[in-house]
Amino acid sequence: MVNIAVLGYGTVGSGVVEVINTNGARINQRIGDELNVKYVLDLRDFPGDPIQEKIVHEFDTVVEDPDIQIVVEVMGGIEPAYTFVKRSLQAGKSVATSNKALVAKHGAELLSIARDHNINFLFEASVGGGIPIIRPLNSSMTADEIEEITGILNGTTNYMMTKMFYEGADYDAVLKEAQDNGYAERNPEADVEGYDACRKIAILSSLISGQQVDFEDIYTEGITKITSEDMMYAKAMDMTIKLLASSKRDGDHLHAIVAPHLLGREHPLFNVNDVFNAIFVHGNVLGDAMFYGSGAGKLPTASAVVADVVDEAKHLHRNIMTMWKSDKLELLPIEDTKKRYFVRIGGNAAVMQAYLESRFGSIEVVEIEGLEGEFGFKTGILSEGEYREIAKEFPTIKGMIRIQE
Amino acid sequence: MVNIAVLGYGTVGSGVVEVINTNGARINQRIGDELNVKYVLDLRDFPGDPIQEKIVHEFDTVVEDPDIQIVVEVMGGIEPAYTFVKRSLQAGKSVATSNKALVAKHGAELLSIARDHNINFLFEASVGGGIPIIRPLNSSMTADEIEEITGILNGTTNYMMTKMFYEGADYDAVLKEAQDNGYAERNPEADVEGYDACRKIAILSSLISGQQVDFEDIYTEGITKITSEDMMYAKAMDMTIKLLASSKRDGDHLHAIVAPHLLGREHPLFNVNDVFNAIFVHGNVLGDAMFYGSGAGKLPTASAVVADVVDEAKHLHRNIMTMWKSDKLELLPIEDTKKRYFVRIGGNAAVMQAYLESRFGSIEVVEIEGLEGEFGFKTGILSEGEYREIAKEFPTIKGMIRIQE
Repeated sequence: MVNIAVLGYGTVGSGVVEVINTNGARINQRIGDELNVKYVLDLRDFPGDPIQEKIVHEFDTVVEDPDIQIVVEVMGGIEPAYTFVKRSLQAGKSVATSNKALVAKHGAELLSIARDHNINFLFEASVGGGIPIIRPLNSSMTADEIEEITGILNGTTNYMMTKMFYEGADYDAVLKEAQDNGYAERNPEADVEGYDACRKIAILSSLISGQQVDFEDIYTEGITKITSEDMMYAKAMDMTIKLLASSKRDGDHLHAIVAPHLLGREHPLFNVNDVFNAIFVHGNVLGDAMFYGSGAGKLPTASAVVADVVDEAKHLHRNIMTMWKSDKLELLPIEDTKKRYFVRIGGNAAVMQAYLESRFGSIEVVEIEGLEGEFGFKTGILSEGEYREIAKEFPTIKGMIRIQE
Repeated sequence: MVNIAVLGYGTVGSGVVEVINTNGARINQRIGDELNVKYVLDLRDFPGDPIQEKIVHEFDTVVEDPDIQIVVEVMGGIEPAYTFVKRSLQAGKSVATSNKALVAKHGAELLSIARDHNINFLFEASVGGGIPIIRPLNSSMTADEIEEITGILNGTTNYMMTKMFYEGADYDAVLKEAQDNGYAERNPEADVEGYDACRKIAILSSLISGQQVDFEDIYTEGITKITSEDMMYAKAMDMTIKLLASSKRDGDHLHAIVAPHLLGREHPLFNVNDVFNAIFVHGNVLGDAMFYGSGAGKLPTASAVVADVVDEAKHLHRNIMTMWKSDKLELLPIEDTKKRYFVRIGGNAAVMQAYLESRFGSIEVVEIEGLEGEFGFKTGILSEGEYREIAKEFPTIKGMIRIQE
């Protein structure tokens, strides 16, 4: 029997118990042993729920029990999750977690403790919910140099962008609807400001580089400034706007960014709608690949956590996860990234185009019937630094959205 | 040093050597040892090519060399591949292959020999080229019952369907263009008749059921009867036509089919175009997921083969691949599958609708301007057996395409 303890009986924790109850026979067959939830750690009691008999309130009960071989951390947040995970690993127990904040901040250290103890620290559910991405990067795409990972990594904002695109709704209305549907939190900041996607791309960037990428270093811009007018321009260009989290290799360095981007119809991420997530990967020999699925939700996330538990149960005393070292990787400054830009500006295109081209180089003007006194234009490829310098000269610029090629 | 031998220096074989040359440093870092191509087995010589010094003509040279730990089989076809792979495994050498015909026919036996010798038989490249799908099924989606796998598994036919859909071209013109571009063979039968996709879905069906699914048992219909008129109807219904290979769980059994299907715009496979492949998976807790990428091509396929080699080099004496047993799984008869059908029929809709509805139940008529003397209709859900019985009564039926929900 393989005994596990689940830390936290919230949405994901109760999902983990439900998945093990639902698919237990199949899971046991895959492990070749019986998987048993021995404890669930939660501050609360759940009278009347069958889980109650497994509820414990003290982490020491878990960590001091030599029967517990795997600890599932699904509490979220840095503390006390970090302390509990670290103590579990130091006690020789493998850990599976869905906690992106914990992995982004302390992943390198926790992986290193797991390796020293010949056990495992796995975190498939921390990025992309149920979508397998960590394990494919770790054990499938091993013949490649991964040159780019670009993902739609946040379901809430993708739901909002989809509604704004297809229904022409404005930001505030869509946010309210997302909140009413339970897709967005009452305090939506972590989603709409891009902080959630930022932690996830930090994890993926660390994995593909093998070094520590600090999420604080990643330029992050949310969707709060995207308007229904922006979507009108996007449609006129046969493009859409998505919150992308992206990491691109440039020699031994990485460019990383979280920001809304314009995407053309031919891009594999164009049609990723509603709360779905997808991760586009470009390998130097594999070429383009994409992984698509439910990026959040109780059961999809729990599915990924339990898959990690299965892997850990099959490798109780054998470390299987690639390390990322704790040496920090310095990201290239945002000013050095090169892109095309879509710019909205007040004024008249016929009057201003020649002057704009004298500063930005050749531009492509986009005008929208009904939007008077302004127009849009696409620049050629410029560094973000160059763009910013030149943009300063044009006080009527209303906004800029980067273009994903 | 980990020494490997590559059997066959054709497209994939030379790709394998190229990938190892290109990404050798990264690959060695991942293995924690140096990967060395010691032999390349081919009947031909390659004078002037640096590979020549590694060329051998006798398989015995490979199998009798105790230094060779991993054999890469990329010759294709059943013989002599089967004999070479079996002898390699029996000699304690792990094998990585891209050979779908071999895996579909002898996978269960070869996996069993590998397990008995505590080595590995891996075949990621046999389905979906560079797309990771075998390994995700084997080690990521292990908390789920996989209820459905539906894939666009053949790039040639997907290229043709895409051209027919977007350009309105007819079948013969598109086939000729595909042949001229090198996307289709001079003898295109294996692709256009669905035989290639059939072997691939047989492999996936065996993996998700854990039993032997014989490709000969899978109902297989190619794209040869799809016309530009069919595409006109598809467009009118805001759908497209794709050659789908699909396996669906029904209790302890599976329904499996390869056939052209109509797909709606909301289906994740709708936008998989050109030579790209994609595999849609539905798990009972994961929900929907999709894997997308290059389904063929020298380097993407070689990328998947070399990733298997990396895994085998990391697990030289440890079996890591889930078995499928050699007991044969009886598929459910095609007559029992339930679907909606799109039917083209000669005649006049106004005249015939009432009578058609008396036989098929409620139908949805589709008429195309310019196509005189015929119309199309969508049925409700019927078993294929029921559909076939009723269809016999209507000799003016020109064709039927199944609808994928």
